[in-house]
Amino acid sequence: MTHPTDAQRRHDPAVRGFASDNYAGVHPEILAAIALANDGHQVAYGEDQYTEHLQSVFRTHFGPQAEAYPVFNGTGANVVSLQALLPRWGAVIAAGSAHINVDECGAPEKIAGIKLLTIPTEDGKLSPELIDQQAWGWGDEHRAQPLAVSITQSTELGTLYTPEEVRAICEHAHERGMLVHMDGSRLANAAASLGRPFREFTTDAGVDVLSFGGTKNGLLFGEVVVVLNPEKVRNIKYLRKMSMQLASKMRFVSVQFEALLTGDLWLRNAGHANAMATRLAEAVRGIDGVTIVRPVQANAVFALLPREVSERLQKRYRFYFWDEHTGEVRWMAAFDTTEADIDAFAAAIVEEMGRTA
Amino acid sequence: MTHPTDAQRRHDPAVRGFASDNYAGVHPEILAAIALANDGHQVAYGEDQYTEHLQSVFRTHFGPQAEAYPVFNGTGANVVSLQALLPRWGAVIAAGSAHINVDECGAPEKIAGIKLLTIPTEDGKLSPELIDQQAWGWGDEHRAQPLAVSITQSTELGTLYTPEEVRAICEHAHERGMLVHMDGSRLANAAASLGRPFREFTTDAGVDVLSFGGTKNGLLFGEVVVVLNPEKVRNIKYLRKMSMQLASKMRFVSVQFEALLTGDLWLRNAGHANAMATRLAEAVRGIDGVTIVRPVQANAVFALLPREVSERLQKRYRFYFWDEHTGEVRWMAAFDTTEADIDAFAAAIVEEMGRTA
Amino acid sequence: MTHPTDAQRRHDPAVRGFASDNYAGVHPEILAAIALANDGHQVAYGEDQYTEHLQSVFRTHFGPQAEAYPVFNGTGANVVSLQALLPRWGAVIAAGSAHINVDECGAPEKIAGIKLLTIPTEDGKLSPELIDQQAWGWGDEHRAQPLAVSITQSTELGTLYTPEEVRAICEHAHERGMLVHMDGSRLANAAASLGRPFREFTTDAGVDVLSFGGTKNGLLFGEVVVVLNPEKVRNIKYLRKMSMQLASKMRFVSVQFEALLTGDLWLRNAGHANAMATRLAEAVRGIDGVTIVRPVQANAVFALLPREVSERLQKRYRFYFWDEHTGEVRWMAAFDTTEADIDAFAAAIVEEMGRTA
Amino acid sequence: MTHPTDAQRRHDPAVRGFASDNYAGVHPEILAAIALANDGHQVAYGEDQYTEHLQSVFRTHFGPQAEAYPVFNGTGANVVSLQALLPRWGAVIAAGSAHINVDECGAPEKIAGIKLLTIPTEDGKLSPELIDQQAWGWGDEHRAQPLAVSITQSTELGTLYTPEEVRAICEHAHERGMLVHMDGSRLANAAASLGRPFREFTTDAGVDVLSFGGTKNGLLFGEVVVVLNPEKVRNIKYLRKMSMQLASKMRFVSVQFEALLTGDLWLRNAGHANAMATRLAEAVRGIDGVTIVRPVQANAVFALLPREVSERLQKRYRFYFWDEHTGEVRWMAAFDTTEADIDAFAAAIVEEMGRTA
Repeated sequence: MTHPTDAQRRHDPAVRGFASDNYAGVHPEILAAIALANDGHQVAYGEDQYTEHLQSVFRTHFGPQAEAYPVFNGTGANVVSLQALLPRWGAVIAAGSAHINVDECGAPEKIAGIKLLTIPTEDGKLSPELIDQQAWGWGDEHRAQPLAVSITQSTELGTLYTPEEVRAICEHAHERGMLVHMDGSRLANAAASLGRPFREFTTDAGVDVLSFGGTKNGLLFGEVVVVLNPEKVRNIKYLRKMSMQLASKMRFVSVQFEALLTGDLWLRNAGHANAMATRLAEAVRGIDGVTIVRPVQANAVFALLPREVSERLQKRYRFYFWDEHTGEVRWMAAFDTTEADIDAFAAAIVEEMGRTA
Repeated sequence: MTHPTDAQRRHDPAVRGFASDNYAGVHPEILAAIALANDGHQVAYGEDQYTEHLQSVFRTHFGPQAEAYPVFNGTGANVVSLQALLPRWGAVIAAGSAHINVDECGAPEKIAGIKLLTIPTEDGKLSPELIDQQAWGWGDEHRAQPLAVSITQSTELGTLYTPEEVRAICEHAHERGMLVHMDGSRLANAAASLGRPFREFTTDAGVDVLSFGGTKNGLLFGEVVVVLNPEKVRNIKYLRKMSMQLASKMRFVSVQFEALLTGDLWLRNAGHANAMATRLAEAVRGIDGVTIVRPVQANAVFALLPREVSERLQKRYRFYFWDEHTGEVRWMAAFDTTEADIDAFAAAIVEEMGRTA
Repeated sequence: MTHPTDAQRRHDPAVRGFASDNYAGVHPEILAAIALANDGHQVAYGEDQYTEHLQSVFRTHFGPQAEAYPVFNGTGANVVSLQALLPRWGAVIAAGSAHINVDECGAPEKIAGIKLLTIPTEDGKLSPELIDQQAWGWGDEHRAQPLAVSITQSTELGTLYTPEEVRAICEHAHERGMLVHMDGSRLANAAASLGRPFREFTTDAGVDVLSFGGTKNGLLFGEVVVVLNPEKVRNIKYLRKMSMQLASKMRFVSVQFEALLTGDLWLRNAGHANAMATRLAEAVRGIDGVTIVRPVQANAVFALLPREVSERLQKRYRFYFWDEHTGEVRWMAAFDTTEADIDAFAAAIVEEMGRTA
Repeated sequence: MTHPTDAQRRHDPAVRGFASDNYAGVHPEILAAIALANDGHQVAYGEDQYTEHLQSVFRTHFGPQAEAYPVFNGTGANVVSLQALLPRWGAVIAAGSAHINVDECGAPEKIAGIKLLTIPTEDGKLSPELIDQQAWGWGDEHRAQPLAVSITQSTELGTLYTPEEVRAICEHAHERGMLVHMDGSRLANAAASLGRPFREFTTDAGVDVLSFGGTKNGLLFGEVVVVLNPEKVRNIKYLRKMSMQLASKMRFVSVQFEALLTGDLWLRNAGHANAMATRLAEAVRGIDGVTIVRPVQANAVFALLPREVSERLQKRYRFYFWDEHTGEVRWMAAFDTTEADIDAFAAAIVEEMGRTA
């Protein structure tokens, strides 16, 4: 980049962390794509040529009926999607650990008036049996009507639904008049881990609308509401605009997804992040006093270790306590996490464990 | 940019238009700033070093009490700001032509339950006298309580408030217990045209909260909710998150504003756009049958010309009819509009007028 | 009533006023009906025998497809109705003087997120031409979509729509994909004045959903959302409950409407109120310095007289200034207003005018 | 009542049920009070003399700072109260079994955008320890901020809080910056059972705002939002109006509460209902195969008995299954339930149990 700028670099790129995959920056191929779409004029608000082309990109991955509506962020994608599934009196069934329930400051309720019917789970995953805990009361006006199910793939707990599990949920939901939303902020991690094309566990499994994540997989910003069942999921364009999720210079969102999804960048990024999480899990599994407490199926590692060790470690590397009560911590790998990062972090864990023992 | 990407250039940068200042792309210095902030890890959701530094950037322009909250887009900035000014039963007084009233798909009402008390204006500008048309009924629970005034600078009609006019409005509002929001999606154009520092017609004039625009002045995306009166305007952070306007990789929003506002990029961009609008107005003022119908004080030109001429012109250059009934059209200049663009467009107008006559 | 009660009479029934038709109490036949429905158990929330029977009562007046949903009050009836007509992104076109715009503390916006597209009128009445001021922009996601029209019969200004005028509005709206709501909080006054059955200017004219008023025509409380077009207007039961308008002991709402609408009580009450308004208008029309400024077509009289006269009069009789700027006052007659009341009030006006001159 | 009416009696008062205390009608002393307040004119919307007097009635029971705002129904009272406690980003902690969570069609979320943070309980009661499951995350904008606690007295499961338990909850909440709402739709049943004045377990225990129930204790309709802490709970009047809960002829709501609360009608009614529930519990406790599954502390009895017995019983008496999965049923007693009703019902249970065995 040869242009000058009055901004200054204020951070040290050598400092690494494991707090979240969105602590990472932008993949260089994504920045290159943005530059490519720059210069000259394009119609604003999504009538540009990049957004038009993006439709075919998404159709390649999700089937010929798919419609792609770029938005700003994941909360936006989720709330826009859910509004499209629900009438004013509708409610959505979700896991208690779902991002829409615990990490969106109540946006579904506050912005869209959507009631969440939540269910405690072991591993962040719903099942037909679990769904039935809340799937009842249709026709009873005293109960917000359960008309949608929302699942997350990969889940907030780093676990995965198999295509068969998704299909079972969708069939169960559809038979009861409920539509299905998938929060796919880490859908690429799921696809990379499953080794299956996206559509096998989305469109083909019966998902009606999808929040497709880009930010956590190397984009500067951007998610896409992907309508998989356009007969049932309509009017996204109004919902997106009134939900303040319509980008004026949308070409720059769309071109990032083109860069991500046309070749295998999505897979390289997500597969690498997954591999780094696995590497970390393998590295620490043998450390006495550290327990990996959940299956490592995507790019997250959940571990139990002495609280004072975690607190000393946090002075060297950023990461979060997942559960303040139990002391469980979460370590996330990103597209740019290196083997050296993992090895240094694992060494630090060993070291801090040693100082405790 | 030497990185490869799977995306392709799909547009012809030589095609120019006058439809909107957000048809333009990103200024190269802004792209350079983004690249500067890339690589390595930064805390997400605004706890990064760029966003921290951004506070001092905004304080330079808006005074030592200013607080800057980057958001995604203008509708988001406006709706977040207004929610901070109003209790649940509050209403906001605005010009009928205000963006919040006509161009946000009802987001203020639908997302935040805000009633707009609108007033017809000649030129998009409110005044104490006009405000009084709606500023009444406090204490009467049958009336949504007018507790805020929103003005746009520069207005949707290309006009400007002088610092004195803003001050008169703010005093009038404050005396009646109302707070003042300024929609500054084109605040830089106003400052460039007025030749006055930002704070003279914002902070110093009594504005309580500001939507500061970046997208229309050369950014890739991004606006900032600027709290000017932190005693009265609080809790933006919760409102921003629940309004789905919290960017995870916020460093990339913040660094753009740093690049824009540290030196004079904001002024170069906005001043140039204004100059191009003036050049266009001057060029067409002499054409028989074309009337410039509003003062050209920023980067917009409003004109009346024969409808069939406009329609032929639209096949050559994109622009909008502003008023379908009267045939009034709007031409916008952007930071990247060139003198050659203006001259070619003016020539096209002459040519098409000639084909009619 | 022979039962004792620990409550005491605290008001003087001889004090009369002209402020509003809801300053009046309950018609004795209505109280008798309530007593009739008392004792023993009835299923709550509308599955009682009175509410069941009420369906046939409304069908008699509004046609065999009509559905009656009792609610608590007029704002509730309006907001429930409008929610049934509009998707999340919809807007409703209404007169600027409409109760939904000026007297509901913003409930449509705040409770239901409904944007009002308002139109100034001379007499409180919309027309196809006036509607067209706001009926545009379908398909443009930047504009809240105008998908309903709301008219008031009789209007807030005491005027009436003829059946033909209602039909013209409904046809105009339907041709453009908009549904029609009628705020009929004083529908009985309209029917009495027009001398036409309800259905001629509602169902048969094309109205889709109606707020039918009872409180202002002698009920203790209660309004009814009447669905006239059940193919287009659905799911009122959920909207009513979630809008906090579902009465548990609904039998007591329903039986009041049975008493009102089975015989001619509705007509006696409304016709009498109208006649008293006319009597008042006739009495004051000849007074020098008093001008009746609007047609007196229902039970409201709007007049201009010297402000100090009005203020002195207000010490003797309660009534409101309609327009603080012009000094216009509104005088309402109720079902229990007597000829003596009118004559005494008219005499008081003469007297106070005399003290001024 | 000697007035004629065109309505007809359509129900058989001899038919009794145990489905809900709002299946009962109106106590004769309440009807007498309504008649007393009738005739003549009173200012609408709460500026009448009955509502004025009602303030002192409530102050007698709840202390000199109490403010009484009559509303239509319990959902309305709850949603108005909660809005007064919470900013836009606030959440309320409540038991999973709370009426606001399970019986209001999502009104808190849909009408007011309030997120509920729910907690499973054994007996419908919260405690400081249970509250702590959700009382965390202040300052974290990703979490809807827990700023209120809502408890129900008596609970939806027929249990009671002691004054000490309420106080402990209020202290715990207040120390953490949370305000406390009490849903008292059956507060009179609680007071009667506890043998304590209202204020001991409301005002004096630290409750900030109360939904005081009337309908379930013999009123025609009506509840009251009682502000107990006017320094923290403000602006109810606007919230009531915009929430469509402002009665125009409010004198008739207020006079009912005057009749209920001036003497001991509230206590006679509630105490009787409680006694009838106890009588029923005693009567069935000895029946083989019938188990009373929860403490009978107010006017509800929860029982387990063979499902086919319940279904046969339901053909003779209306009541509800409380839990479809377990077959648990709920029997409610009302102010008008007689000893003979109870004895006949108990006999029917014995009889139907016998047919099964």
